[in-house]
Amino acid sequence: MPERPVSEIRTVACIGAGVIGAGWAAYFLARGLRVRAWDPAPDAEDKLRRVIDAAWPALTELGLADGADPHAIALFPTAAEAVSGSGFVQESAPEDLDLKRALLAELADAAAAAGPDVVVASSTSGYPMTDMATDATDPSRLVVGHPFNPPYLIPLVEVVGGEQTAAWATARAAAFYRHIGKSVIEMDQELPGFIANRLQEAIWREALHMVAAGEATPEEIDRSITDGPGLRWPVHGPCLTFHLAGGEGGMAHMLDHFGPSLQSPWTRLEAPELTRELRDDMVAGAEVSAGGRPMAELVAERDRAVIAVRRAVQEARAAGAGHS
Amino acid sequence: MPERPVSEIRTVACIGAGVIGAGWAAYFLARGLRVRAWDPAPDAEDKLRRVIDAAWPALTELGLADGADPHAIALFPTAAEAVSGSGFVQESAPEDLDLKRALLAELADAAAAAGPDVVVASSTSGYPMTDMATDATDPSRLVVGHPFNPPYLIPLVEVVGGEQTAAWATARAAAFYRHIGKSVIEMDQELPGFIANRLQEAIWREALHMVAAGEATPEEIDRSITDGPGLRWPVHGPCLTFHLAGGEGGMAHMLDHFGPSLQSPWTRLEAPELTRELRDDMVAGAEVSAGGRPMAELVAERDRAVIAVRRAVQEARAAGAGHS
Repeated sequence: MPERPVSEIRTVACIGAGVIGAGWAAYFLARGLRVRAWDPAPDAEDKLRRVIDAAWPALTELGLADGADPHAIALFPTAAEAVSGSGFVQESAPEDLDLKRALLAELADAAAAAGPDVVVASSTSGYPMTDMATDATDPSRLVVGHPFNPPYLIPLVEVVGGEQTAAWATARAAAFYRHIGKSVIEMDQELPGFIANRLQEAIWREALHMVAAGEATPEEIDRSITDGPGLRWPVHGPCLTFHLAGGEGGMAHMLDHFGPSLQSPWTRLEAPELTRELRDDMVAGAEVSAGGRPMAELVAERDRAVIAVRRAVQEARAAGAGHS
Repeated sequence: MPERPVSEIRTVACIGAGVIGAGWAAYFLARGLRVRAWDPAPDAEDKLRRVIDAAWPALTELGLADGADPHAIALFPTAAEAVSGSGFVQESAPEDLDLKRALLAELADAAAAAGPDVVVASSTSGYPMTDMATDATDPSRLVVGHPFNPPYLIPLVEVVGGEQTAAWATARAAAFYRHIGKSVIEMDQELPGFIANRLQEAIWREALHMVAAGEATPEEIDRSITDGPGLRWPVHGPCLTFHLAGGEGGMAHMLDHFGPSLQSPWTRLEAPELTRELRDDMVAGAEVSAGGRPMAELVAERDRAVIAVRRAVQEARAAGAGHS
């Protein structure tokens, strides 16, 4: 199939203009793209405008692409009209499986009419595309492109196809997101909740259990993260964090030393058996995350980052207090 | 019992000089305190020195107390000698229950001899004090004071007593930590893993399951956090994050809209039943975390913080790349 380079995509259709859809629109505009939007809500245009205007100062500070224009967006009366003339489609409708099925079937047809290489990416938080694509005549161009709120600031996008998605469509979605500056994880299997939401949901469910059992308040839970491990996570993810917790011995020492605590009732989630294979996979994986850097360098990086992050958050909070 | 104000504590005993104990020592020194340390390892002095010297630039950047001196530390041949002459005791021995029991019994006696208001706080990652205090003749001054790695940069300390801990001891530990600038959560019950480690452990266990099942690599797991939800957690914890995810409707809309996804297999951890009571507790709790601020202000705060955090992390990484 003859594909145009993703750099030639000039116009994106945003289907759905809630918090996520409008956030995507703001990001696409900041990357210098034009946006064709559709949303059945009567106040959709106002909501879109509000989100884009609120996001634009942040996007300007992060750096706009040449020709970026917050007004290069138009709302159309039907989804098909929004898709027509677009080079990429981002669907961000409510998380309702029946609604997604019908909408994605319509979008697949409209995208095929718009061009042979036009991909439809769904912002779904957790539905596998195989389940969402059941009504489509040709589901080959339907992929998941799952962002994080707000899509105009958080770089991560998880890309994964369904059983009937064509390999070119998944690859093209990933290439397009990377081209516009996103951090893409391409998954090769449909895992409910993908990766980041599974991790986030594990925290969330444990938090709900703790509140339900009267063990902690939401405020304590929030502060335990913002003033605790949350300060490390923007620089080192959970695996690299535990690599550092092992001191000079790194992940290997951590697992050999704290392995038994996996049997402790420290969360309602049972741990897997720490087999030799899992231990070795974690040790090797920590080395990949560390990029071969020695422990002292990782510690120095974490310290610099935590200091800068603490200061950044303090200033962001103080700026707000000054306005209110 | 006549207590001296915590501001009159001038000397802290650091028992154990591993990653956590040495990190505590660096923090106490930066707050202008003197440290009396003990550790049975033959290279303890070298390790302490290395950690303190590595931490000092970071601590200097965050601001030192008057009279802070990185050399105001001495190593003693026994734990009892280190505790003698100290106004507070921080125990950071390895996570071995038998070892903790014997050591805390000894420290309780030594602390009582050092002064009637001298508290012994344990850095344990998860043992309840009731289980650790079994060998102590008088466990009334034994509390948990659980820090996060590195203790010289992460503000959170979780404080909780055992069944036989005196109320004055828990309150005094909390007051001392607050006095030296820590963010303290005082828990009124002994929950294994306390609060933050339960949440962190929920992520960690889900991550181990995913690696064991071949669903994601450690590198993907790390990046899904650093480039995803990890960017929000230094400013808004998990509850406030979901409050914002609900748009104008906040936590109430989020729970009513995404409640059904709690039944989805998005993590191996089963969710609690979303009762009306739990829903209302979460909604009220989000309001407390939000401090009564309107949604637009919270969104603006998050955006400022995420931008500043992204920039801070980029600079911290670039500074390291420049050195290597």
